[in-house]
Amino acid sequence: MEAYLDNSATTPCLEQVRDIVVKTMMEDYGNPSSRHQKGVDAEHYLREAREKIAATLKVKEKEIFFTSGGTESNNWALIGSALANRRAGRHIVTTAVEHAAVLMPLQFLEEQGFRVTYLPVDRYGQVDPRQAAEAVDQDTILVSIMMVNNEVGALEPVEEISRLAKEKNPSLLFHVDAIQAYGKMRILPKRMGIDLLSVSGHKIHGPKGIGFLYVNEKAKLRPLILGGGQQRGMRSGTDNVPGAAGLGVAAALAYQDLEETRARLFARKEQMIQGLRKLPDVFVISKEGEEGAPHIVSAAFPGVRSEVLLHALEERKIYVSSGSACSSNKKLPVSSVLQELHLKGELLESTLRFSFSRFTTEEEIDYCLKNLAELLPVLRRYRRR
Amino acid sequence: MEAYLDNSATTPCLEQVRDIVVKTMMEDYGNPSSRHQKGVDAEHYLREAREKIAATLKVKEKEIFFTSGGTESNNWALIGSALANRRAGRHIVTTAVEHAAVLMPLQFLEEQGFRVTYLPVDRYGQVDPRQAAEAVDQDTILVSIMMVNNEVGALEPVEEISRLAKEKNPSLLFHVDAIQAYGKMRILPKRMGIDLLSVSGHKIHGPKGIGFLYVNEKAKLRPLILGGGQQRGMRSGTDNVPGAAGLGVAAALAYQDLEETRARLFARKEQMIQGLRKLPDVFVISKEGEEGAPHIVSAAFPGVRSEVLLHALEERKIYVSSGSACSSNKKLPVSSVLQELHLKGELLESTLRFSFSRFTTEEEIDYCLKNLAELLPVLRRYRRR
Repeated sequence: MEAYLDNSATTPCLEQVRDIVVKTMMEDYGNPSSRHQKGVDAEHYLREAREKIAATLKVKEKEIFFTSGGTESNNWALIGSALANRRAGRHIVTTAVEHAAVLMPLQFLEEQGFRVTYLPVDRYGQVDPRQAAEAVDQDTILVSIMMVNNEVGALEPVEEISRLAKEKNPSLLFHVDAIQAYGKMRILPKRMGIDLLSVSGHKIHGPKGIGFLYVNEKAKLRPLILGGGQQRGMRSGTDNVPGAAGLGVAAALAYQDLEETRARLFARKEQMIQGLRKLPDVFVISKEGEEGAPHIVSAAFPGVRSEVLLHALEERKIYVSSGSACSSNKKLPVSSVLQELHLKGELLESTLRFSFSRFTTEEEIDYCLKNLAELLPVLRRYRRR
Repeated sequence: MEAYLDNSATTPCLEQVRDIVVKTMMEDYGNPSSRHQKGVDAEHYLREAREKIAATLKVKEKEIFFTSGGTESNNWALIGSALANRRAGRHIVTTAVEHAAVLMPLQFLEEQGFRVTYLPVDRYGQVDPRQAAEAVDQDTILVSIMMVNNEVGALEPVEEISRLAKEKNPSLLFHVDAIQAYGKMRILPKRMGIDLLSVSGHKIHGPKGIGFLYVNEKAKLRPLILGGGQQRGMRSGTDNVPGAAGLGVAAALAYQDLEETRARLFARKEQMIQGLRKLPDVFVISKEGEEGAPHIVSAAFPGVRSEVLLHALEERKIYVSSGSACSSNKKLPVSSVLQELHLKGELLESTLRFSFSRFTTEEEIDYCLKNLAELLPVLRRYRRR
């Protein structure tokens, strides 16, 4: 038995994704910029992928731009909008619990003379919308808030923050890092006041090396990658047709039965949390039920260091994460997500993240819980006192 | 019969590339940043790919950084080295015939206060090394010269330019856009004085959406894409394992029998040029034999507009390019490559590029030549007088 419970780090590709990737690598391999039929055929795959993605968000196809992944999408959204709107202002509002792919570009922008406000979060990782609105002023050009926190699964009230922020300054752009949310939540940028939305392919059983940025057609944004003028000059470089086609298929399938998927994910989450509660001395960090993301359970196991527990589980083919797989060991410019929750040191050092996909089974969760029950008393015997 | 003679635009993937891409999409799908075994397994693919690529260039593995393709490699090399070395100087030297993925980032740097010298070329598209050296001064921080011109296949004397430029200013960085050269030329950065080298995967039967930048370990370079700190902080974003693994396989195979490959390509080029010479009123732009790249033949067909001839060939399943597939229709900041060669308008408007891969057959070239011989007199009857 194997239990892959690290789906927020990455997911395997779907067979349907593999098939279109292989077809466009081997047969329909043309460069969409070529003027002959092979180029036209390749362009067709791009258009179809854009259509599929735009349909999941109810936005226009021309508002979807392919990137090399979520990190590039975030870099582009932040740096591209800051450079395009610097004459309107120099202030940016974000949270203290964003992914490094948001925090590091913001640190770069601070070097370039921009001013960044980092909003604090509550014990669950959530931002207070009124505090967010208070931070906005007439110099604010950009607000960047993640939809689902990657470490603890907190849901940020992006729609409310956008509404309050834009009431105060209607000209600002609202960016949402939806890398953990896309495929698990209904996201409607037009209704939610989202101008820029970052998504990654490999978190939803699509290919690695591809993602997209939704850009409201009215938003002013500079390109980040310059060159041959592909994607209407907004993102140059030979179009990654296999990646885009694979992402289109993955996106359509992720949203095909969203309500069923969510119900199944919430059932797994409930199963996991109830199981954890039966174990002695376990502290569940994530919010239960629909007040948190459906696919992420973060929990602390006081008395066992997370690395030790991670590797003990790994020996039994249970794959989980300590913190975020996407962050290296380096110190972030602001304290890490868990520190922002003001957890005690003992909890900080013993936290694991269990993350599910729509293919995660009841048996996998049971297998993980059974092994936790066996391992925890053994490992705790060796705890430092 | 079909003749795909647009290999400088893109190439189909090799079966060996497809196999490793599929394996890492479906089975060994882990995120190299994950601390468990699936992450370790994925990291192994990256290391192996870096080893294979480093071996083709005789450089260190840690000098190879994966990017989303040639365009990102060029953007990163130029913007990253300019920002990292701006205190040392503000002058950059390049040629007037670089790809848009070099020219557009340089235009951006000009906006940021850098000064750029664009070297002229001769009738074949070649730069004079002494002129290049003359352009270098104590304010020069970067020289960027392509190895093979993508439109006409001109070979730039990069080794000599680097030597002369560094004699004059030893602290400058030397960047080479090798996107059309890699896999067709022996490239030894250490011997040739190359500090930064851009390569794309899909030009050598590897995947789209992947490339690499060789960075001399002594070169000062800022990252372009910021985030989780992957690739030692130099290029963040979840590692594109399938792309990197596929590129590693493609690179190793491209260099496996380089001399045989070159001999075969030069034979095709000779066949093509000799065939063109037998047709009435054809002007071969590319340099013959080993004085030009082995895989690109550019020729003008006065009296027929290139678009017309391209589509007439396409109807017979012969795929070629008018100009570069990578450039959109937009005007470049400097005049286009062909204009730089000072060709007459009639030649400019009737030029096609025929580009080969190591799998291009004698039969494909014959088929193309036979059809050109049939089509040209017919199409010329309709020429505007």
